[in-house]
Amino acid sequence: MNRLERCFGAAVLLVGVSLISLAISEGAQNAGAIPGFAPTRVEAEQQLEAKLRGIPDAAHAEANLRHLTAEPHMAGTEASRRVAEWLRDQYRSFGFDAEIVSYSAWFALPRTVELELIAPKHARLASPEPPIQGDKSTYDKRAVAGFNTYSPSGEVTAPVVYVNYGAPDDYRELDTLGVSVEGKIVLARYGHGYRGIKAKLAEEHKARALILYSDPQDDGYAAGDAYPHGPWRPMGGIQRGSVLYTQIYPGDPLAPGAASTPDANAKRLAPSDAANLPHIPSMPISAKDAAVILSALDGPPAPRGWQGGLPFTYHIGPGKAQAHMKVVMDFAERPVYDVISTLHGSSDDEWVILGNHHDAWVYGAADPGSGTASMLEAARALGELVRSGWKPRRTIIVCEWDAEEPGLIGSTAWVEANLAALQAHAVAYINTDVGVTGPNFSASATPSLKNVVRDATQDVPDPGTGASVYRTWLVHDTRAERMVTPEAPLGALGAGSDFCPFFDHAGIPSMDIGFDGDYGVYHSLYDDFSWMKKFGDPTFAYHATLARILGTLALRLDEADLLPFDYAAYASEIVRAADGLASRTAKQQEQAAILKPVLDASAQFSASATRASQALAAISSQSLDPAKARELNHALAGVEQALLSPDGLSGRPWFKHTVYAPGSYSGYAAEIMPGVSEALDRGDLQVLQREANSLAAALRRAAQRLDDVARLAQDAAAR
Amino acid sequence: MNRLERCFGAAVLLVGVSLISLAISEGAQNAGAIPGFAPTRVEAEQQLEAKLRGIPDAAHAEANLRHLTAEPHMAGTEASRRVAEWLRDQYRSFGFDAEIVSYSAWFALPRTVELELIAPKHARLASPEPPIQGDKSTYDKRAVAGFNTYSPSGEVTAPVVYVNYGAPDDYRELDTLGVSVEGKIVLARYGHGYRGIKAKLAEEHKARALILYSDPQDDGYAAGDAYPHGPWRPMGGIQRGSVLYTQIYPGDPLAPGAASTPDANAKRLAPSDAANLPHIPSMPISAKDAAVILSALDGPPAPRGWQGGLPFTYHIGPGKAQAHMKVVMDFAERPVYDVISTLHGSSDDEWVILGNHHDAWVYGAADPGSGTASMLEAARALGELVRSGWKPRRTIIVCEWDAEEPGLIGSTAWVEANLAALQAHAVAYINTDVGVTGPNFSASATPSLKNVVRDATQDVPDPGTGASVYRTWLVHDTRAERMVTPEAPLGALGAGSDFCPFFDHAGIPSMDIGFDGDYGVYHSLYDDFSWMKKFGDPTFAYHATLARILGTLALRLDEADLLPFDYAAYASEIVRAADGLASRTAKQQEQAAILKPVLDASAQFSASATRASQALAAISSQSLDPAKARELNHALAGVEQALLSPDGLSGRPWFKHTVYAPGSYSGYAAEIMPGVSEALDRGDLQVLQREANSLAAALRRAAQRLDDVARLAQDAAAR
Repeated sequence: MNRLERCFGAAVLLVGVSLISLAISEGAQNAGAIPGFAPTRVEAEQQLEAKLRGIPDAAHAEANLRHLTAEPHMAGTEASRRVAEWLRDQYRSFGFDAEIVSYSAWFALPRTVELELIAPKHARLASPEPPIQGDKSTYDKRAVAGFNTYSPSGEVTAPVVYVNYGAPDDYRELDTLGVSVEGKIVLARYGHGYRGIKAKLAEEHKARALILYSDPQDDGYAAGDAYPHGPWRPMGGIQRGSVLYTQIYPGDPLAPGAASTPDANAKRLAPSDAANLPHIPSMPISAKDAAVILSALDGPPAPRGWQGGLPFTYHIGPGKAQAHMKVVMDFAERPVYDVISTLHGSSDDEWVILGNHHDAWVYGAADPGSGTASMLEAARALGELVRSGWKPRRTIIVCEWDAEEPGLIGSTAWVEANLAALQAHAVAYINTDVGVTGPNFSASATPSLKNVVRDATQDVPDPGTGASVYRTWLVHDTRAERMVTPEAPLGALGAGSDFCPFFDHAGIPSMDIGFDGDYGVYHSLYDDFSWMKKFGDPTFAYHATLARILGTLALRLDEADLLPFDYAAYASEIVRAADGLASRTAKQQEQAAILKPVLDASAQFSASATRASQALAAISSQSLDPAKARELNHALAGVEQALLSPDGLSGRPWFKHTVYAPGSYSGYAAEIMPGVSEALDRGDLQVLQREANSLAAALRRAAQRLDDVARLAQDAAAR
Repeated sequence: MNRLERCFGAAVLLVGVSLISLAISEGAQNAGAIPGFAPTRVEAEQQLEAKLRGIPDAAHAEANLRHLTAEPHMAGTEASRRVAEWLRDQYRSFGFDAEIVSYSAWFALPRTVELELIAPKHARLASPEPPIQGDKSTYDKRAVAGFNTYSPSGEVTAPVVYVNYGAPDDYRELDTLGVSVEGKIVLARYGHGYRGIKAKLAEEHKARALILYSDPQDDGYAAGDAYPHGPWRPMGGIQRGSVLYTQIYPGDPLAPGAASTPDANAKRLAPSDAANLPHIPSMPISAKDAAVILSALDGPPAPRGWQGGLPFTYHIGPGKAQAHMKVVMDFAERPVYDVISTLHGSSDDEWVILGNHHDAWVYGAADPGSGTASMLEAARALGELVRSGWKPRRTIIVCEWDAEEPGLIGSTAWVEANLAALQAHAVAYINTDVGVTGPNFSASATPSLKNVVRDATQDVPDPGTGASVYRTWLVHDTRAERMVTPEAPLGALGAGSDFCPFFDHAGIPSMDIGFDGDYGVYHSLYDDFSWMKKFGDPTFAYHATLARILGTLALRLDEADLLPFDYAAYASEIVRAADGLASRTAKQQEQAAILKPVLDASAQFSASATRASQALAAISSQSLDPAKARELNHALAGVEQALLSPDGLSGRPWFKHTVYAPGSYSGYAAEIMPGVSEALDRGDLQVLQREANSLAAALRRAAQRLDDVARLAQDAAAR
């Protein structure tokens, strides 16, 4: 039994929504079927894919990573330009039409980052990350100090309050305890959400500054052996990172919604007018330095769940402990070098896009090097296919973004600069970022693409188990619950990587994939080649596997007769989310009334998706007219865009997608039906009304597009 | 609305079992009702209780505790005799007929307890508990070293393996990892179960020795501030304790089921024939010493959930780390001094018994002093009532047990010596042990007594909240689930204190009550008067409150016209447990067939309980004939004994109760329907058959007793 059959059965039994795939004709349910391919073309596709999967090679991937991690190459530095040029040359050597596309964006590098405890005793903190014997890279003086991009400059002396993860619940707990952070320096541990949300909450609660640290309970010795003995964060390791409020909008803060072209005349905001800039200084420190402050705090003992892994009882403060923080940032317009590499298809009308960033906080072996090293191998394989006579059906574009780390700057600029063209031509965006940190495949995707990911991973062997990546993934991700689920789970797309402008802003169907493992050196000096060779992927077999998956996904989306987008699956997620909203408001008549149109529109979307799926399943593709196929594919690719709202979400109009967005306060995780859900959280009936209307309208528009799909499919089948 | 009404309604709606209380006539549902009392007697009882509750006093309780903790007074020492004599004199001064009842039991005091790490480096361990500045008691040289009673003498040099809590699941995890403890010294942290079960499992897995330690995650700095800054265990604190396999039988291991009288001719087993003695040496150490060993272990990193609070990554071993342990125990027949104090009732035919132990590992301020200090105040109050002219209806016996810590020795001996009399006369046993460690009331009881505890606590104010202890308890214990439950929860009686021989062996309806709080100094030097004064109960208000509750419970059970035992509640617990067994075996035909008689007997018990409750509710007590009342009360008190099986549980015949027992491998917690449940765990059909028959027979016998109750009640009502 193949996966499609199983899904179909399960869906009919469990949710009553038929999951009829877009695979064409009865052949779809045979072992040899590939969704979206005419039976007559399956064998050729299988041969092509097999050839492609034979090419990526662990030694090549390792050499790629070695080159990518040869020196620190932070965005805004010359080294980042050198990496971009090398990448361009690599893609050119594979046969791609590759070029560097430059933008100019306003972001900071650190000049001074100082921290000291001044009471009850004095201690100099903000220590640099100590070098590790036997790992030469860690001795390099070019590694940037621990800092938070987009922290403003500032100097603060104040008592310290520990706020656990600095999440909304933590501030509620502080309220209960009667502890205010107003005028204080807030000390928050990393984890449970994006650091930019921690910064925003600290600012909203009137703290004067924010110190972030990595608690050993979360990614240090309490999670497992620390580097160089294991893959976890050593006590001296620091997590750098941006505090830009990307939950409001990502990209150059002075050019929201418009590409930051290097043109000196381009319109820019004044920094004081940018809605996504933090107003209090922040900095990250190591667990070792944090222990000095934390152990000096008095006040009430930390509530249940706030105690971390350091060897003393955590207290909240404030009390006699005082810190002095000084942050001087060098803000400037800095160059950003995206590398855009194109393999032209028979038609340039439809684009399959792959992407990852190339900038790194220091060496970035896992983040982003592992993804790029694998992407290069996938591109090399596609290039080899072209050399051996193959011509892509659709155009394949591989993007290497710069300045992702400061705030998705390179990808956002490119998407904004090419918005209309992307919305007209882009079929899908495949992202990989932290591509390999271990052996556990994981993925997030728009619902219509989840089965595409599942299908592709069925045809790629896992180097650890010998079974398929899909099988290994399924067993691993369902083991914890000790139950057999019929499908490996994919998450929803949240934030935190370059799919964000594609999906949330442009409505391009997107996915994000990679192999996960024990990874405690995130955004530190120690995320280097040695770490990867020792712990992440010693044989580079998972890099080669990721390349095979990326290549397979690209080929399928490129070559499919009909785009294998599963809108029945999308409908079932929408209906479930709408039901969730309905049960949240079951006892509140007014809210329930406001949400009624959302429920109706969800049902309409679901009915339309079912009709479209049935119509598509009835097509006999052998006789499919190419012009009609193109029209049908265009309609299929455009459904996601119909879910965008022209005015965006309230308070953050850059975010156009009405069904998915990163949570305003919930970290990297996706919020489903975010406008409505967050209005309910806040109890704001006026915003709820606006968001419900906007969501319902989007769902109705998408349903109409699905009706177009059904009509076109019926028309094609009738021939 | 009073609690009875609410329970009644909830029970009918939720479980369909009517919870008709034994409160007599309609008056029961009035605010002024007391279950078991004729309406005409309620006012007098209320006045009596009010008078009693006016007597206990914080200053007296504090003075009691100061005396009880004046010196270390471990069982088997002269100091324990001195405490017994003082207690006897106290009870005599209250007007009780008090005497010391001596037994002689075989147990050890330590001669040598040595531990050293010998590889990869040398370190002398087994450090004594360091004194605390400002707490004079902690400097006393008479405090016994850290040791485990009933550890055999032995000397072992072997590699060390860390086994987490040393529970059955942990050994299963080690199997999965391919790590064997055979021939090794096992290092287990305290928590998640009785240390005697840890010792038995280590022995069963062929370890050569066991080291127990207190991890700071469980009761040290990670739980909260450590003594003297807070109530939790300092890094140097050691948890002493017995490793006797009390889950097989408690009391003198050489005299199972028979009182250890000092008579030299009394029959004794050879130690090699005692089924409850450990065969591998064990010892407890501090977190500070454990850190030296744990940080020296290599081998695989600890699995998820095994990492504790020490500041490094835990590894399992074995590897180069070797330890040398030497334990020399001084086993001997040692005197045990129970203090039995009696307040004779109008009739000596029915006995209400209260008890706590008086022996302590060192000072035992919380364990057991706080319970004894409160019990003394309750007894003083009862004595004052007698002095003012009151005469108890039933006889009240207050017991102070010796040698509870080595293995419930004093109470077990007394119960065994007086078994027939107890079964003929004892109405209920009220235990308190660690009486006060904080403000949170908690209780365990046989199901028929749960409402008695709830009722009594409704009439005692909580010193912290001003509301009743019941209300405070209800709010506290249901807060975590953020739900309103109609009743404060009481646990089932497990093991770990002196109710065990009364309940599990003799079938006397029992309860165990106390006030809980943050308490990390259990069984250490630091469980002293200063700890209690600083953290446990600084004003001793909770001691006085516990005395009021103990006195109220004693008075109600003593004075009730009809014993207020709730067998409908018992039935609903039995039916729920039987349903649980049925759903465990739903898919196993053979097991289900074997369990059928248990389900039938449970239904019979339930039907009989309902009939008995209804008949009792119909009695108009004003005209109740005293002889008939006595007969009815005798029948009511005897139902629990009908649940005993003459042959006991398989493998541990001392445990006679078929519905409740401490789990053989699940720690202190109670196992419900233990014979059947554990046979299912082991998959042993033959034992399952035996246990199901024995349980079903017991339930049918108990149902018949309830039918007797119903008949007697109908007869009484017909008058």
